[in-house]
Amino acid sequence: MARAIRLLCAGIGSATVVAMAAVAATDDELKPPVGYRQWFHVNTMIVDKASPLFEALGGMHNVHVNSVGEAALRTGGPYPNGTIFLTDLHDFSVQDGSYVEGPLKGLAVMVKDSTKYASTGGWGFQFWLGGDPKKPIVTDVVKQCFECHQPKKNQDYVYSTYNP
Amino acid sequence: MARAIRLLCAGIGSATVVAMAAVAATDDELKPPVGYRQWFHVNTMIVDKASPLFEALGGMHNVHVNSVGEAALRTGGPYPNGTIFLTDLHDFSVQDGSYVEGPLKGLAVMVKDSTKYASTGGWGFQFWLGGDPKKPIVTDVVKQCFECHQPKKNQDYVYSTYNP
Repeated sequence: MARAIRLLCAGIGSATVVAMAAVAATDDELKPPVGYRQWFHVNTMIVDKASPLFEALGGMHNVHVNSVGEAALRTGGPYPNGTIFLTDLHDFSVQDGSYVEGPLKGLAVMVKDSTKYASTGGWGFQFWLGGDPKKPIVTDVVKQCFECHQPKKNQDYVYSTYNP
Repeated sequence: MARAIRLLCAGIGSATVVAMAAVAATDDELKPPVGYRQWFHVNTMIVDKASPLFEALGGMHNVHVNSVGEAALRTGGPYPNGTIFLTDLHDFSVQDGSYVEGPLKGLAVMVKDSTKYASTGGWGFQFWLGGDPKKPIVTDVVKQCFECHQPKKNQDYVYSTYNP
C-alpha cells in the first residue's frame, strides 16, 4: 500500500463517531480547506469491505496536496511548512463490477507546521464528519492518527508517493 | 453508474491496442492536455474484473474537468466550447482488501467544440496509450466513443455529474 495515504485516522467507525464528536476538541485551529478539488490529485484508494481497515477507514479516498507540497511529493519529502494533504472520503457502491463514487463521508487533513506540531512529526491531523467544520472527531491525535503514520518516518510520515 | 464518465472508448483492450495504434489517425489535432491534475477532480471510478466493461475500460478512472467546464458540471450541462474532460486511467492492485492505484495506462479526453465536432454531439474524443501523444488509438470516434455516450444526450453526452 505504498501509494496509499493514511491521513485518515483510526477509530472513525460509525460506532465511535457519536461519542467522539461529543467530546471533540474545541481549541483546534484547523479548519477544512477550500478549493482542494483544484489541488494536485495525488491518488485514489478504495478501502473495501474485505479490508481490516474498513470499519475505521472504509470508503473511497481521494487524496490531494496543495501547491506548497507538490514539489516535495515528487521527491518523496520532506515537506515544507504550509503543506496540506487533504482526503475527501466518499462512500462507494458496486454496480455491475464497477466501484462508483458515492456521497461525501468526511474530510481529513495533514497540515505541516514543524513548530506547532513538533510532537507529532511536524504534522497536525483532523477529520471532519461530512466536511462540517463543526464536526471534528480527532481528540487524541497521537493514538488516532500519528501512531499509524510513524512507520513512514522516512517519507516524512506521508504514505502517499508520487504516481505519474 | 450515474456519476461515472464513460469518456474512455470501447475497444482499448490489450488484444486490440496494437492493431489500432498501427492505424491511428495522424490528422487529429487533439493532444493530451497538461496540468490536468490541478483541474477539478470530478470523481473516480474503478472498473474491476467482474465488470463486462473490464476488457475495454478496466482500471481506475480519475476524471477531471478544466475550469471552462466546471460551472456547467455543477448544473449538469450543457457545456461551453473549450470544456475538456480528462480521465487519467491507472492500473490498480488489490492489497488486503484495498484497491490501490497503479501505473498510468492512458489518458482520455472529451473536448467540446460545437462546430468542429458537430457530428458527434459537439465533442471530440481521443485516448492515448500511456498518455503518449504519439499513441492515439481512436480511429472511429463514432463506434469507439460516441455511440456509448448517446444515451446521455440530456447531460450533453457526459456521464459524470457533480458530486460534492
